[in-house]
Amino acid sequence: MVKPQLWLLVFTGLSGAVAQTDLQGQVFVFPKESADAHVVLEMNHNGPLQNFTMCLRYFTDLTRPYSLFSYEARDKGNEILLFKEKPGLIALFVGGEKVFFTFPENTGTSRGWEHVCVGWESATGIAELWVNWNPLPRKGLQKGYSISNQGLIVLGQDQDSVGGGFDAKQSFVGELTDVYMWDLATVTEAMRAASGDLRLPPSLLSWGALQYEIKGYVVVKPLLK
Amino acid sequence: MVKPQLWLLVFTGLSGAVAQTDLQGQVFVFPKESADAHVVLEMNHNGPLQNFTMCLRYFTDLTRPYSLFSYEARDKGNEILLFKEKPGLIALFVGGEKVFFTFPENTGTSRGWEHVCVGWESATGIAELWVNWNPLPRKGLQKGYSISNQGLIVLGQDQDSVGGGFDAKQSFVGELTDVYMWDLATVTEAMRAASGDLRLPPSLLSWGALQYEIKGYVVVKPLLK
Amino acid sequence: MVKPQLWLLVFTGLSGAVAQTDLQGQVFVFPKESADAHVVLEMNHNGPLQNFTMCLRYFTDLTRPYSLFSYEARDKGNEILLFKEKPGLIALFVGGEKVFFTFPENTGTSRGWEHVCVGWESATGIAELWVNWNPLPRKGLQKGYSISNQGLIVLGQDQDSVGGGFDAKQSFVGELTDVYMWDLATVTEAMRAASGDLRLPPSLLSWGALQYEIKGYVVVKPLLK
Amino acid sequence: MVKPQLWLLVFTGLSGAVAQTDLQGQVFVFPKESADAHVVLEMNHNGPLQNFTMCLRYFTDLTRPYSLFSYEARDKGNEILLFKEKPGLIALFVGGEKVFFTFPENTGTSRGWEHVCVGWESATGIAELWVNWNPLPRKGLQKGYSISNQGLIVLGQDQDSVGGGFDAKQSFVGELTDVYMWDLATVTEAMRAASGDLRLPPSLLSWGALQYEIKGYVVVKPLLK
Amino acid sequence: MVKPQLWLLVFTGLSGAVAQTDLQGQVFVFPKESADAHVVLEMNHNGPLQNFTMCLRYFTDLTRPYSLFSYEARDKGNEILLFKEKPGLIALFVGGEKVFFTFPENTGTSRGWEHVCVGWESATGIAELWVNWNPLPRKGLQKGYSISNQGLIVLGQDQDSVGGGFDAKQSFVGELTDVYMWDLATVTEAMRAASGDLRLPPSLLSWGALQYEIKGYVVVKPLLK
Repeated sequence: MVKPQLWLLVFTGLSGAVAQTDLQGQVFVFPKESADAHVVLEMNHNGPLQNFTMCLRYFTDLTRPYSLFSYEARDKGNEILLFKEKPGLIALFVGGEKVFFTFPENTGTSRGWEHVCVGWESATGIAELWVNWNPLPRKGLQKGYSISNQGLIVLGQDQDSVGGGFDAKQSFVGELTDVYMWDLATVTEAMRAASGDLRLPPSLLSWGALQYEIKGYVVVKPLLK
Repeated sequence: MVKPQLWLLVFTGLSGAVAQTDLQGQVFVFPKESADAHVVLEMNHNGPLQNFTMCLRYFTDLTRPYSLFSYEARDKGNEILLFKEKPGLIALFVGGEKVFFTFPENTGTSRGWEHVCVGWESATGIAELWVNWNPLPRKGLQKGYSISNQGLIVLGQDQDSVGGGFDAKQSFVGELTDVYMWDLATVTEAMRAASGDLRLPPSLLSWGALQYEIKGYVVVKPLLK
Repeated sequence: MVKPQLWLLVFTGLSGAVAQTDLQGQVFVFPKESADAHVVLEMNHNGPLQNFTMCLRYFTDLTRPYSLFSYEARDKGNEILLFKEKPGLIALFVGGEKVFFTFPENTGTSRGWEHVCVGWESATGIAELWVNWNPLPRKGLQKGYSISNQGLIVLGQDQDSVGGGFDAKQSFVGELTDVYMWDLATVTEAMRAASGDLRLPPSLLSWGALQYEIKGYVVVKPLLK
Repeated sequence: MVKPQLWLLVFTGLSGAVAQTDLQGQVFVFPKESADAHVVLEMNHNGPLQNFTMCLRYFTDLTRPYSLFSYEARDKGNEILLFKEKPGLIALFVGGEKVFFTFPENTGTSRGWEHVCVGWESATGIAELWVNWNPLPRKGLQKGYSISNQGLIVLGQDQDSVGGGFDAKQSFVGELTDVYMWDLATVTEAMRAASGDLRLPPSLLSWGALQYEIKGYVVVKPLLK
Repeated sequence: MVKPQLWLLVFTGLSGAVAQTDLQGQVFVFPKESADAHVVLEMNHNGPLQNFTMCLRYFTDLTRPYSLFSYEARDKGNEILLFKEKPGLIALFVGGEKVFFTFPENTGTSRGWEHVCVGWESATGIAELWVNWNPLPRKGLQKGYSISNQGLIVLGQDQDSVGGGFDAKQSFVGELTDVYMWDLATVTEAMRAASGDLRLPPSLLSWGALQYEIKGYVVVKPLLK
């Protein structure tokens, strides 16, 4: 297996060539369970992160565990990981620590598109999770922690090492879209910003200008309405 | 048992005599479980198929597995098969490969008329299933495959060989109507076409001009509204 | 026990004296489980029946099996029988053959008034069952059969022989009203007729002009609204 | 224990002194499970009862069995008893005989105020139970029976002898109000009367003019709206 | 461990310095399960309490038992304790005695904000619990009892001794806001007062002017709407 540092080097080299793409109205389809299909996104931030808010939408009929958003840094484990344990239960990892959020959800079959936003601030450790625009009870973790900016974001797989260590049984199968990430501590700020009420800081990720690389069987398709 | 090739020959000979019938407002009633009641439809396409979209509506109180649409070709198995495994679970076979779609549905008793559309494109392997006009998460199978046009479509039974190999325990019992099939890769295109927004390609099957042959206990009746 | 033929004779003799009664707005209350409480109705038809449509409404909290409408002829078994097996499952017998209809229904306690219509035509064997004005998937049985007109209709009990052979555990307990029967093959025709859109054939049974005899503990009461 | 006859004597002596109270807008709160908290009401009727209709409203989170209304006469058992067996199941006793009524109801926790009316007529034995103004399928019991007027009505406990024989495990805990009783055979008549459409016979019990005696821990409180 | 009396002394000394804070629009977030995170509130009342009404709102996904409001006095146990046993079941303790209130509630996951008001009057012992503005059946306890004013109120933990004796497995995790307490016997009075229809007595606790001290990991955050 390629060593993380080397791989980062290679990727950084390649990513210079990756143009920004406006994916609005488009989705990533992950058509099959596998241990290799994934999308690599670039994290653009100068220095460690004290806050973040990340949103995405997904559509799946999985009931087994799967990764929704995996950010892995060198010499760390689960730097940021949003992980669906089962219907109605989402785990958030920051710097390797974990909290759970529960919410009402059908336990079987496809549940329609689901929208999640997660926010975290280092100063208090307070973490928010919003599901379909409803806030859940806030939890707290990693108060005072700084998130490394030396890492890779992967959609579709759970990284156990930077850019690798995938497990088919935790892979995402279904459709995923509208991934956004900001250097903001709360979802409320991000939502106000997204609706134009607030001037947003430069986003860390934006679906309207995404730098991404597809690996394996992932297909870009128009959103079905 | 008649050999497939022979049977095809015989059928082709007969089918020349089968007139097109406008079945709008009519349904096929499959009144009883059996291993012989079925309807044979003709597939009219020049050469292999790279795409297809097929829609139909059905009304049943079955909870055991049954075939919804079976297209079988010479020397192949399950060239196209839409198979209801149980309430809320439909399998799609293309060229013998299978993917599952799940959706919310009551598990017991009659569930009212259900409408399904399935689409598949060879270029990406992406398959769509819409249930009651709602798209499910897309899956993928048989990327690059070509579907044979040398086969028979059967409603009411699951073909294990061309035009035969039926199993009463997989037979359809209930009512079935509005079968359409086009050489189109997505349901969206077919729906836009059906609503007049798009000029349709010649349909492979149309309920308004259907060539069919009834075998065994199947009755054509007006739709009950 | 009185022999069927004799009993018929006696009944026919008596029934000449039974006046037609307009029971509109009235119900039969079957207040208790028993093996004798029932109502005998007269079937008026010249010669064998090729078609029939029968409707009635009932209100009960039974969850065990019970008879809704039992028509028994000499030397036959279950000439016409509408039998509730359990909540959500109704069996229809014609000439001793049986088909099942399932529908969504609560499994416990009183479920409010339920309206059923059943239709059957000999030419195709197709049988319809409508529950609360919703048609269920059609089934088929006894294609080509002729129903004897030499029999007795009993409400409240399941006849195992003409006018007898009752089982308390299959008796009806509750309220029953609006029994109608026509020499028509489909419920649609009967409904159109009932709403005045179609001239009805002379009815075989009409709640507005019913010839009936009460046996045992059955009480005529106004419908509670 | 005081002997029934004696106790009756004492009570009759006392009750002459009990003034009629208008309890409209008030409820009896039975705050705790006990074998003694109860309310004694007087039955005012000349001679045996051929008919009765009784209504009341209650609010409880009990799921175990409990008495709603207990009328006990000398040398009789359960002369009139309305007994909640469990959520969705009410037993009515008349002259010691019992019938059951079932209805849809949540099985756990507080279910809001529930209104019940029960009617019985001796001539046919037909008994009605209405829950929240909806009639249940009628049952029948004690046709031809006459109810003694030599008895005591108790709220909050199930009498096993006149004015006693209480069991804490069948006691009522919760709130109870709007108790009315008439010498009428059907709930329909009572409801028409209560809404002013019909001149009521003198009531046997009226919440607007109630003669009652509280025994043990029962508190009169305003209805919470 | 610090002795209660001493601790009280220390606290009283400190509390003189604690300013009143207007917390309207703010919540206490209890981000993690622990045996130390809690908020201490001051009870300001001259002499023993004969009545109280207390309201608060909370938001949690806990399904295990937890304390909602704990008031502990010297040489007493559970002077006032509102304790959520499990979804749909709340226990109220007054002077060490306990009553249960049940209500309909989902058993899993986050259930949205829940508002509770509890009232108690010494004269009758009657206790009220309102959940989301709906009164539950009233119960009774500690008739004639006087509540000590020599105690401490704690949010987030169940006190087994004054200001201590915490158990992480009964700690509150989630969000809590809008705590009010009055010297009033019924919730109706408090609600009328809160809506301006009635002049309130000086409140014992008011979210708009709260004297509190945070201990351990508790964070004040704006309410998410």
